Amino acid sequence: MSAPNPATLWGRVLVDELAKGGLEAVCIAPGSRSTPLTVAFAAHPEIDVYSHLDERSAAFFALGRARRTGEPTALVCTSGTAAANFHPAVMEADQARVPLLVLTADRPAELRDSGANQTVDQVKLYGDAVRWYAELPDPEADERKVRSLRTTAARALAETGGPDPGPVHLNCPFRKPLEPLEVPDAVPDAFAETLAGTGREDAFVETETGSMTLEADRLRPLLAALEDAERPLIVAGPADPAAISGLNPEHVVAVADRVGAPILADPLSNLRFGPHVETGSDYRCVYGGYDGYISELPAPDVVVRVGASPTSKPLRHALRDSDARQFLLDPAGAWREATFTATELLATDLGSAFETLAELFENGAAIETDVDEEWRARFDAAERTHWRVRDDALAADALESVDEPFEGAVLATVFEAATDPATIFVSNSMPIRDADRFARPQRADLTVLGNRGASGIDGITSTALGAGSATDDPLVLVTGDLAFYHDSNGLLAVDRCDVDATIVLLDNDGGGIFHKLPIEDFEPPFTAQFKTPHGLEFEPLGDLYGLEFDRVEPHEFGDAYRESLESAGTQVLAVDFESEANHRRRDALQTRVLEDLTVTDQ
Amino acid sequence: MSAPNPATLWGRVLVDELAKGGLEAVCIAPGSRSTPLTVAFAAHPEIDVYSHLDERSAAFFALGRARRTGEPTALVCTSGTAAANFHPAVMEADQARVPLLVLTADRPAELRDSGANQTVDQVKLYGDAVRWYAELPDPEADERKVRSLRTTAARALAETGGPDPGPVHLNCPFRKPLEPLEVPDAVPDAFAETLAGTGREDAFVETETGSMTLEADRLRPLLAALEDAERPLIVAGPADPAAISGLNPEHVVAVADRVGAPILADPLSNLRFGPHVETGSDYRCVYGGYDGYISELPAPDVVVRVGASPTSKPLRHALRDSDARQFLLDPAGAWREATFTATELLATDLGSAFETLAELFENGAAIETDVDEEWRARFDAAERTHWRVRDDALAADALESVDEPFEGAVLATVFEAATDPATIFVSNSMPIRDADRFARPQRADLTVLGNRGASGIDGITSTALGAGSATDDPLVLVTGDLAFYHDSNGLLAVDRCDVDATIVLLDNDGGGIFHKLPIEDFEPPFTAQFKTPHGLEFEPLGDLYGLEFDRVEPHEFGDAYRESLESAGTQVLAVDFESEANHRRRDALQTRVLEDLTVTDQ
Repeated sequence: MSAPNPATLWGRVLVDELAKGGLEAVCIAPGSRSTPLTVAFAAHPEIDVYSHLDERSAAFFALGRARRTGEPTALVCTSGTAAANFHPAVMEADQARVPLLVLTADRPAELRDSGANQTVDQVKLYGDAVRWYAELPDPEADERKVRSLRTTAARALAETGGPDPGPVHLNCPFRKPLEPLEVPDAVPDAFAETLAGTGREDAFVETETGSMTLEADRLRPLLAALEDAERPLIVAGPADPAAISGLNPEHVVAVADRVGAPILADPLSNLRFGPHVETGSDYRCVYGGYDGYISELPAPDVVVRVGASPTSKPLRHALRDSDARQFLLDPAGAWREATFTATELLATDLGSAFETLAELFENGAAIETDVDEEWRARFDAAERTHWRVRDDALAADALESVDEPFEGAVLATVFEAATDPATIFVSNSMPIRDADRFARPQRADLTVLGNRGASGIDGITSTALGAGSATDDPLVLVTGDLAFYHDSNGLLAVDRCDVDATIVLLDNDGGGIFHKLPIEDFEPPFTAQFKTPHGLEFEPLGDLYGLEFDRVEPHEFGDAYRESLESAGTQVLAVDFESEANHRRRDALQTRVLEDLTVTDQ
Repeated sequence: MSAPNPATLWGRVLVDELAKGGLEAVCIAPGSRSTPLTVAFAAHPEIDVYSHLDERSAAFFALGRARRTGEPTALVCTSGTAAANFHPAVMEADQARVPLLVLTADRPAELRDSGANQTVDQVKLYGDAVRWYAELPDPEADERKVRSLRTTAARALAETGGPDPGPVHLNCPFRKPLEPLEVPDAVPDAFAETLAGTGREDAFVETETGSMTLEADRLRPLLAALEDAERPLIVAGPADPAAISGLNPEHVVAVADRVGAPILADPLSNLRFGPHVETGSDYRCVYGGYDGYISELPAPDVVVRVGASPTSKPLRHALRDSDARQFLLDPAGAWREATFTATELLATDLGSAFETLAELFENGAAIETDVDEEWRARFDAAERTHWRVRDDALAADALESVDEPFEGAVLATVFEAATDPATIFVSNSMPIRDADRFARPQRADLTVLGNRGASGIDGITSTALGAGSATDDPLVLVTGDLAFYHDSNGLLAVDRCDVDATIVLLDNDGGGIFHKLPIEDFEPPFTAQFKTPHGLEFEPLGDLYGLEFDRVEPHEFGDAYRESLESAGTQVLAVDFESEANHRRRDALQTRVLEDLTVTDQ
């Protein structure tokens, strides 16, 4: 590795090692101090470079790509506030276990806290939100330093992964010249021939990280609890595809079948949809309507939980209010259970745990379980009722026979009419709650993503487009108007990063979710400070970013959506709703489900 | 102070004390966890509430307001990534000494790191970028706790001010109910009658903060140096109005006059414009063209510096390359001098220092100084040449007799045709550099602001609109296309916060400043990764945000600008330029100045 000066050498060595370590993509925002990194990334034949102009959007785009692939995506920015713009996405990556490699250019030590331009304190900028922080040494053609640099690249990639993936921050000081300008003798020819200079054919340090496994004997208490359970339940909370990549859903289904446990699958669990799901009148094991009926069913006595805390508040409350033994299985051994009802925490890789459990059952561990025969039947009945009521509502909407069309119908259609496969990104606030309640389990290979780590609405569009950039799957984004406004800059990636999407915009002019909260009854300040209607008509964003923008009537949505899925380019399908009426509609549907259930029970 | 529950009590007491302490404005982004704060602010009759939907823009708006007034502005957001969106503006406030009071709602301690929704680690979120961080205690109607809360409010405001103003972060945990719902016995009637409950008529703790002053004897070394100087110089770097509010410009002028020192006034020094400036053929003491000619003049031997590091790189280099004694005067005693040529640091309030110096001179301290008689004459000649060359260029542009119109002409016109008074906000990158070189000192009362603390381009529009919200001065924003894109969300404040502005958009389709850097010669990646042309036609943003958007020809700009200044509402005046040709034009003008100076010298 030769270079005209130390800064250029640093960029080239770092990028060379990152590529050898498997890094495939980087998001770069323009800047001067980061020139050595940008030049090296742009010149590398094996790394895809996505250029962004707003660092906040850049970071969420990288987050989305990493969410979808499970592979680290790098981020590059110049010094100063640019780095702080990465902070929201770094936070989400931390909470949601997404591998991000953040490279911030910085002034060298002698210029810090000196009043030098665009110089701020970037040391440990993201606090404890990163898995690892390191400051690169001052660039210099010194063998030990360069070996440390190559090792740091390998280490940084490794630290983004493992059982608890997340963001890593390398702060990278550079001294001028930043461009590939010749500085005589700064990088001697002889240096290029050293091991530090040449590196190895493959990564300087190949890294492998094991995973937590519990051998069969240590799973026996869980097995015994399941055998003894009368009302066992499996709850699958949000988990990105990578988080369950080693988990064979058939093993979960096998365990659930054997012990008679319904699997309540969060829309973000990546277990609600897929080939393991039986549909039709026999729901087999995967249930999706629980948000609407769980409050009416008996409490479980044994619960096995995987993934993060479920989106459904009724489900969280049902778990809280039960006296069940609750087993949390988590590959990082993390305590992600905010109702504090867990009784056992098992730090274990999910794939091996369920494989072992399935094998134990297969080998006759449980000759018979104590499951209550009514238990699964109650869930089946409730599930049927829930979807029947929903389907009736959809039919009414399609006939325009209701006064106020329903946001939930859009969410239902988004999933049922999706292509197979598809990547569906669902925004926070009401869209994910409606997906939770109205998206029926199905066999299609749908990858469902959301920013549910910190549940912000700040980078939704960019995260979705980043996810879309990673595969050839059709991409659908379902978002509300506040999130759409918040990350309107992210739409620039449609063109600059060449992503096609169908963007479903549920436009109810403000924060509809606040109607769910008691603040609804305090006016003022409810409308001005909480609901915050803005009156924005978003069509001009279509013109600005070269997107097709169609405002469709709710009953036309299904056709427009199917057409968009078939079309090239990015379409925004905006559908107007009135949020207060929608909340009343949700309540009414819920009431009908509960009434029907009561009738069935009698 | 009565309240239906502890969270509501917390909000009311805190806001009551902040108002009594003088807080006049708050920027609020909607959210649930922050409900107690939002409800209390919205109900307070003496605090202006600005509602924003993007926390990044909200924070920059608050920054701009505080920049313009020198008074703390508060910020409120909910928990999670919302708080991280404040980070860029907090950084700028830190670097630029702007008083911001950041109030982030948080989950109570028992929900942190538990997987609870929208819960991240907000403790010391902004690291060392804040002057003070405190976590509010859990809300409870306990006398000592509430007295601590009232005291904390007073203290937080005080910590935003003093000799080194800046951001303060209060992290505010709240437990449900967040809304003003009655919780029986939670806040006993008797509590409302206690001192903690009632508070005092005025602030619970009235605070006064002194300032650093150096008595006359301790200023004598500086006085002596100025008396002995042959080539003295006063350099005024960027300083917000509040930073020099105690400084009487006439004192600076008196000192400069007495010792024969030119005052080189940065466009952001708030000393380049104002009633102390003589114009016409006698520039008196305030010089503004130095960026174009300082490299050709003799080196100073004594320099007095106030404010932050100057925008002008030629000036910084001239100071670096001189052997001058350099006195840094700073009210916080900060070491803001990144070329490390300062020889004396004086921690002193600027107003009292210059008043004392002026008095000492007035009282005959310096019977005569050693100033080189040619010294001021050389500056006068250079200044005349600089502005003559500039005026010739403007005339040529107005006649459309040049191939490529010139961005510098727009900056010149923005200042010369501004109303008196006006607030002019200038973006980073090229606009501030062109203002530095082409905005001639004048007597008008122009308040000139920029985000020059960390020099980001991320919140320019919002900062300008925030500044505009604080006064009745007409507001002008000069921005480039990248900054305009970056903070396009900020335009929502035009309507929501009712700010009128004239927005001058210099549109050269990308990062023109990179043409100034050596990376220009490396293609690729110059265009794709540095200049980053985006091809955006911004007109739709006018439609989206209800602004008049006019694309004007460069030679029409003056008339359009004057018309906009007279008009109500916000107008965007976009002027297209070609950045590469503009850099050649800047170089050519510079060459002409230098040639003319050489001829004059011979």
